[in-house]
Amino acid sequence: MAPLAISMGEPAGIGPDIVLTLYARREELGLPAFVVFGHAGFLTARAARLGLDIEVIATEPADAEGVFSRALPVRHIEGNVPDQPGQPTPDAAAVVIAAIQLAVDSVKGGECRALVTAPIHKGALYHAGFSHPGHTEFLAALCAEDGVEPLPVMMLAHDELRTVPLTIHVPIRQVPGLLNEGLIIETLRVMARDLRDRFGIAAPRIAVAGLNPHAGEGGAIGREEIEIINPALEKARAEGIDAVGPLPGDTLFFPLHWRQYDAVLAMYHDQALIPIKTVAFDAGVNVTLGLPIVRTSPDHGTAFDLAGTGKASTSSFLAAIAMADKMTSGAP
Amino acid sequence: MAPLAISMGEPAGIGPDIVLTLYARREELGLPAFVVFGHAGFLTARAARLGLDIEVIATEPADAEGVFSRALPVRHIEGNVPDQPGQPTPDAAAVVIAAIQLAVDSVKGGECRALVTAPIHKGALYHAGFSHPGHTEFLAALCAEDGVEPLPVMMLAHDELRTVPLTIHVPIRQVPGLLNEGLIIETLRVMARDLRDRFGIAAPRIAVAGLNPHAGEGGAIGREEIEIINPALEKARAEGIDAVGPLPGDTLFFPLHWRQYDAVLAMYHDQALIPIKTVAFDAGVNVTLGLPIVRTSPDHGTAFDLAGTGKASTSSFLAAIAMADKMTSGAP
Repeated sequence: MAPLAISMGEPAGIGPDIVLTLYARREELGLPAFVVFGHAGFLTARAARLGLDIEVIATEPADAEGVFSRALPVRHIEGNVPDQPGQPTPDAAAVVIAAIQLAVDSVKGGECRALVTAPIHKGALYHAGFSHPGHTEFLAALCAEDGVEPLPVMMLAHDELRTVPLTIHVPIRQVPGLLNEGLIIETLRVMARDLRDRFGIAAPRIAVAGLNPHAGEGGAIGREEIEIINPALEKARAEGIDAVGPLPGDTLFFPLHWRQYDAVLAMYHDQALIPIKTVAFDAGVNVTLGLPIVRTSPDHGTAFDLAGTGKASTSSFLAAIAMADKMTSGAP
Repeated sequence: MAPLAISMGEPAGIGPDIVLTLYARREELGLPAFVVFGHAGFLTARAARLGLDIEVIATEPADAEGVFSRALPVRHIEGNVPDQPGQPTPDAAAVVIAAIQLAVDSVKGGECRALVTAPIHKGALYHAGFSHPGHTEFLAALCAEDGVEPLPVMMLAHDELRTVPLTIHVPIRQVPGLLNEGLIIETLRVMARDLRDRFGIAAPRIAVAGLNPHAGEGGAIGREEIEIINPALEKARAEGIDAVGPLPGDTLFFPLHWRQYDAVLAMYHDQALIPIKTVAFDAGVNVTLGLPIVRTSPDHGTAFDLAGTGKASTSSFLAAIAMADKMTSGAP
């Protein structure tokens, strides 16, 4: 089976630490073979800093599986990547960006079977000319076909609870104005399709949260449910999507309730992320739906204060690897 | 010790069912003595409907403790209260309202030590002239001193997680405009005082959530944190209130995080209620801070479809009784 591709992410952050730590425990954890897209010399230096006895080998993805048991396979990218935990520098940006590009290409080309991305630091990349709002949008651009980008849909997943925020990194003040039927329907289409094709759920049931307290209580506490969400759900259902709602955000996340659904579409960031963080501790996974490739990532950032210390939790990254593996191993 | 006062709530809802069911299990559950403010004949009829072998005795609160082991003490209020599960009628409104008034008076007067309220149905009360936005506001009005109403603060509580929504039953669209320094500071004052006086926490630590994703990320995703919440917290801290934040809503509800605090002040309804529902299943309790009396209630409504069936969960109501007992038994 083809290896997983892992993009190295921000070298000043905890991503490389976690990848190296997990590799060192590969046997105990039963990890599937992966290849890291990044800088071999930097990874060797970071491993030494962490006191990990790891051999790093520059290799092609095709050879990664044979190498994996004895050395960490790295698809090496030339560049200037200093081992400076906590101190991001634009010098490394070209390697960070190329790692993502080459990893995406390797999955699109079939040399790797899925992509797990370590966190990036947008600030350091912007200085080097990176112009995308975030990691996920960059991936969507890399996956464009004939100039048309797919709609990437961010899903937070943990065991049976999966949530999708319809709007993400926008102020609460702007959320009501961003809701529209088209966005809701298109997001539901992506969710329904990928829950079926990527998660092996034959007939996915999707719960849709309301925007307002008590889902607007029949218009008494806001009208977006009546004017936007309800009409969108009717149209989605007419297409055969099993979408239920709008449901009150609070009672929906009563576990006996959400366990009746395969995923929840929430209207805004915290409505989707609070229940996952509450339930999943530090083992939630970010899965990007809507792309032609499988992509997962941990649900944490670069955590500069922990970089180089070896103290960063590996739970979420391990869950991201396990989910990418499960989604592409033919046994979903 | 004085008994707890329980107001009967909407007779067409599940409140009476749950009170009767819990009374029937008083020994097994080790319940403290309570007296129900309501209509004795109605409660007798509902008990018979539920197949519960309960004797109902009209009595004064002062005699409730002696009666409790053999019969349900009811502070009887004359009126027309039909036993019609699921069919609210304005006929009963006068008794429902009087039950709350008399129960509040009994706690203020010391005949009862705390109030546990069963859910009401505002629609049925409005038809009878009830003019308050909700149960809690009515209680605040009943607790006015010299015409000045206290600021009631709704807290959702479960074991160690306690959350307070700064804004409650308002559309999300209106939430940003309702945030202001004065409301935040006054709410924090009430929380700090009552956590100390009612919950026995000598030096309460309060976490304050941001409004926007990632608490605004330094202004990149909204400015309410910088312009309103931060200045309010600085002033609150200058008064000696140990308030930390604004913290990102999602990571705050990571359990290892919120366990560091005695309570969380959230900015809006779902931000406070989602984590409680996720953590507390159906055993969350609504505690009203800021009143001169201790008042708790279950975190569910009248659930007309379940009334009279005996199938309503008693968990939250039981937790509300236990919390009122704990808060007033001298062993907080």
